Parts: sequence; C-alpha cells; structure tokens
Amino acid sequence: MSIRIIGIGESTRVLPIITCLNELGLPFELDPPSSLADLKTEDYIANKHPFGKIPVLYDGDFKITESRAICRYLVSKYQGKHNNTVLIPNDVHKAGLVDQFIFYESFYYDPGVSKLLFQEVYSEKYHGKASDPEIVKQAREEIAKVLDVYERLLEGKEYLNGEYSLADLLHCPTFHFSCVVANHSDLWNERPNVKKWKDRLISRDAWKKAASEYINN
Amino acid sequence: MSIRIIGIGESTRVLPIITCLNELGLPFELDPPSSLADLKTEDYIANKHPFGKIPVLYDGDFKITESRAICRYLVSKYQGKHNNTVLIPNDVHKAGLVDQFIFYESFYYDPGVSKLLFQEVYSEKYHGKASDPEIVKQAREEIAKVLDVYERLLEGKEYLNGEYSLADLLHCPTFHFSCVVANHSDLWNERPNVKKWKDRLISRDAWKKAASEYINN
Repeated sequence: MSIRIIGIGESTRVLPIITCLNELGLPFELDPPSSLADLKTEDYIANKHPFGKIPVLYDGDFKITESRAICRYLVSKYQGKHNNTVLIPNDVHKAGLVDQFIFYESFYYDPGVSKLLFQEVYSEKYHGKASDPEIVKQAREEIAKVLDVYERLLEGKEYLNGEYSLADLLHCPTFHFSCVVANHSDLWNERPNVKKWKDRLISRDAWKKAASEYINN
Repeated sequence: MSIRIIGIGESTRVLPIITCLNELGLPFELDPPSSLADLKTEDYIANKHPFGKIPVLYDGDFKITESRAICRYLVSKYQGKHNNTVLIPNDVHKAGLVDQFIFYESFYYDPGVSKLLFQEVYSEKYHGKASDPEIVKQAREEIAKVLDVYERLLEGKEYLNGEYSLADLLHCPTFHFSCVVANHSDLWNERPNVKKWKDRLISRDAWKKAASEYINN
C-alpha cells in the first residue's frame, strides 16, 4: 500500500505528518495542489476534504483528513512495524495522557502560535499584506502565557508525557517557523525547560530529515 | 476503582463525559467546584488542570483532563466491559475516521457553536452581560456554513462515520443548549439530514439520562 499526502511540504499542518512518517520509517509521496484556489473547488470539497483544507492522506484507497487524526491513524496502524520508535504507548493511562497533551497543543498552544505565524510568515507570502504589529503583540502575549504553563509542565521531565510521544512531535514545525523564520525565539528560549525540550525535539533525525527536505528557507 | 469528575454537570464540556460514562455503563461521582474563581487558584492550577479549566477526571488515582481526551481514555479502557456499545471501533481505519470526525467537531463545529452559546446562554448567567446581536449573527453564519458541510457528510448515512461513535456523541450537549435553551433550532432543523441525525442522537438513553439528571432548564 502506498502512502500519498495531498499538501504543501512546508505547511505546519503537513510537516507533523512527514515527521511522523519518518519516525515510523514509512516511505510516502507528496502531491501538492497546483494552487490554494484548488482547495476551494467543488471537486476538491466533494472528493478530498469537505472543509477545503490540506492535508489529506491516502493509504492505498483509504482516505483520512486532519493532521492530528492522520498521525494517530499512522501510529495505530504502523507503530512497531519498521522500527521500535514509540509515539503512543500501549499502556492505556500513558496513551490517554498523550491524547490530553495533543488537545493542549490543539486548544492552548496552537491558537496563539497560528495567529503569530499568520502575521509573520503567511500574510505577506500568500495574501500580500504586511504583518500587523498589534496582532503580533497579542499573539506573543498569548504564547507567553501558554509557555509559562509548559515551563511548569516540563519541570523534571524531558518530554510532556515523560517519554517522547506524538504530542511533542506535533509542536516541531511551529518551533522552526516561530523561532527561525519569524525570529521570535526569545519566547521559547527564555524559559529553560521549554528551551531544552524544543532543542531536544528539533535534534531528532525524523524532524531534521523533514525540515531539510521540505522547508525552503 | 471509582470515577470522579470535577466539573459542573450542565457544562458542554462535562456532559459529553457523563453521556460517554452512561454509554459504557460506568457509575461515577460529580464533584462541582465551589465557584468558577476556584479554577484560577494556585492550588487548582498546580494540582488539577494547568490551564485552570474543567473537567478533570479521576479514575482511582489516575488523573486526566480535556473532555475529548477523557472520553477517548474511558472508551479505550472500558469499552466492552459492561455492555456491547461501540464508541470507537477496533478496526484501525474506522477508528481513524472517528478521530477525524472528532477533529471536525473540535475545529469546525465547536468554535461557532461555542461563540453562540457564550452570547446566548453563559454571558448573562455568569458575566451579567446581555447577548450581543452582532456576534450572534456572526456565530449563526459560521454554524450555517459548517452545517451545510455536515448535511452533505450525512447524505445516506445515519451517523458521521456510518455507525454511531464517540464523534457523534460529542455533539449532543450543543444541540440542547443551541436548540432548546437558546432557541436557534432552525439552523439544525432546516437541514433534513442534520435534523434526523440530531433527533437520532438526542433520543439515545445515555444522553436522555445525562440531560434529565444534570440539566436544570
């Protein structure tokens, strides 16, 4: 069965999937849409993603959407098949807490970071509009509050759930775009536990391979 | 092992857990905080929920937060133990799509509905502020767009994933507060597939028991 992702390699929604596939030792093809307008066509909405989004993953004939659901699916199906990397533990309690941290990422971490990246990375590139300093300021304040919580959560731990998991992996692309591309690394680096956690994550081979192959700047 | 929920029974974040526990045939205790201010105390943040939210679930000594993660945990641990109700199928592809629909609920359905309910149900009750008609109008437009997509997703199907699942269950409390308490049922009822799906869900015993025991109006 061949795995194919419809998406743009440097999207923060696609890079977690590529990193996850690398962790699991799975080959795949990336199939970028010809333009963002493609995602809003009747055909795309009827046959690919009902809300007109990327990514979409095909595993043979099986289709699934939404980056976090896609990663969970890949782990459920392929973990342990090609190597010993564990992204979701078998233990029901540990696995439950991985889900909890995935929802922390979804509902607390991601909104502020997405707001920042929209202004500082995507607005000019895709919409021809300069970044709005007031929104950037708000986003930085939101991120600071969340990272204060992460700083406490990571006290005495290498990873959110103690051991490396899918919940940590999902944060990797946002580090790159917030800290390297958009130069807001102070938010992450001035919190010692968060900085060590970030550095630990971006030094993993699965992320380095994804970044070197799919990020252009 | 006894199950205890810290939360308010009629919260849209707590009712899915109560419904899920009813579906799985599990007894539990509800332990409401004495006030919303309790959730922002140093003790609550350090020991219960790091972002100062409800619900928190204790299963014996094991603690987990975030309603969707809590439900997934309960299903992983207890499904099939007390009855034959299936909320997440064993098949890896079907289970993957349940997750996909959980993220549709989280990222597309919930934001508009939460915006509506904040104005129409919680703003007056908890903050002494009247509903803002302009925000209600925006929320209704957002919900209408999402329900148009649901109408197509539900074509020829009784439930989002074909068979009843946790993804459907998560929507139940919002039907009650949007349609019964806040009188916006037209949005759901004017779309035939959505209406039939909603009616099917609110007629389940697990929801009816949760609603009759924990909703006051």
